[in-house]
Formats: sequence, C-alpha cells, structure tokens
Amino acid sequence: MEGAIKTVVMQFLSATRGKENLSSKSFQKLVQSQLGNIMSDTDSSSAVKDMMKGLDDNQDGKVSFQEYMTLIGYVANSVCEQKGQPNAAGGQ
Amino acid sequence: MEGAIKTVVMQFLSATRGKENLSSKSFQKLVQSQLGNIMSDTDSSSAVKDMMKGLDDNQDGKVSFQEYMTLIGYVANSVCEQKGQPNAAGGQ
Repeated sequence: MEGAIKTVVMQFLSATRGKENLSSKSFQKLVQSQLGNIMSDTDSSSAVKDMMKGLDDNQDGKVSFQEYMTLIGYVANSVCEQKGQPNAAGGQ
Repeated sequence: MEGAIKTVVMQFLSATRGKENLSSKSFQKLVQSQLGNIMSDTDSSSAVKDMMKGLDDNQDGKVSFQEYMTLIGYVANSVCEQKGQPNAAGGQ
C-alpha cells in the first residue's frame, strides 16, 4: 500500500510543477487525466470548477495538498460505497 | 492513480473481513504489514495503540473508514514533506 500512497502524493507534486498549490488549470488537468474513470462529470469544466470551489477551504482559488487529500478521501469513500460495504455510510 | 485509490480502499475492506470497522487487532496487523516501511514505531504495540486512540474520533475502540482515511492523510502528508516540497507545511 505504501506505493499507492506515494503515487497519490507524486501525482500532486508533479501537477504543481514545483509550486506550492495547484492552479485551477492544473487541477482540471489532474482530475480529467487521473480521475476520469472513477468520477463523473470530469469532462465538464464547470463541474470541475464547482468541485474545486467545494474543496477550496481557504478560498484562495488554488488547491493545496490538504484540499487535494480531501478530494482523495471523497473518491475513496465513493469507491468504498461501490464495493457494497456499509463502511462509507454517512461519510463526510 | 485510480488504481492507487482502489488499493487503499481494498486494504481496509480486506482487513475488516466484512465487518464495518477495524478492530484494534486488525488495525495493528494492517499498520505493521502495510505501513511498516513508511512509518516509524509500527513494531511497537503500544505506539500503534496510541496511534489508534488518536484516530478514534468517536472513542468506540475501533477504526472506521473515515478514521482510516485520516491516517492515510497523515502518511501522505509525511511523504509529501519528505519529498522536500513546502506543500505539507502546517498540515492538520
């Protein structure tokens, strides 16, 4: 599993290209290329923008690592639900 | 990256063996077998118990999927810091 966690981190780091946070554009690209099969509506720019607004706790128009990990948590929760387990019920 | 997220979810689901939450024992096994190279002190039962207490928001002595994802977030944050990026600074 350690490789899986590193993969998640490296996707963020390579998408930021050395900057601290993901810009709106980089976030769109990352979601479309990396989460297109697992999430719905990633082809819609406006849907991805809305998603980003929902994640952007500090409202700075960028996605920090913490905010990105919140997204990963949502996606994991939805994968868990799809597997038909009760674990993810009532997830945040 | 979708495979990586699924790996993280499946590790939890297989460790619970059909139950909703991880018992203290299952949590210890999972941490030792899956995160031993990436975290320190996983060989120490008391350290892993303390870690579990820290995660166990609702104090029920078990680890839910949400609580497990909190741990994954911590580990990811620490991997991110190790890569020498400023992203993880001040993480929650």
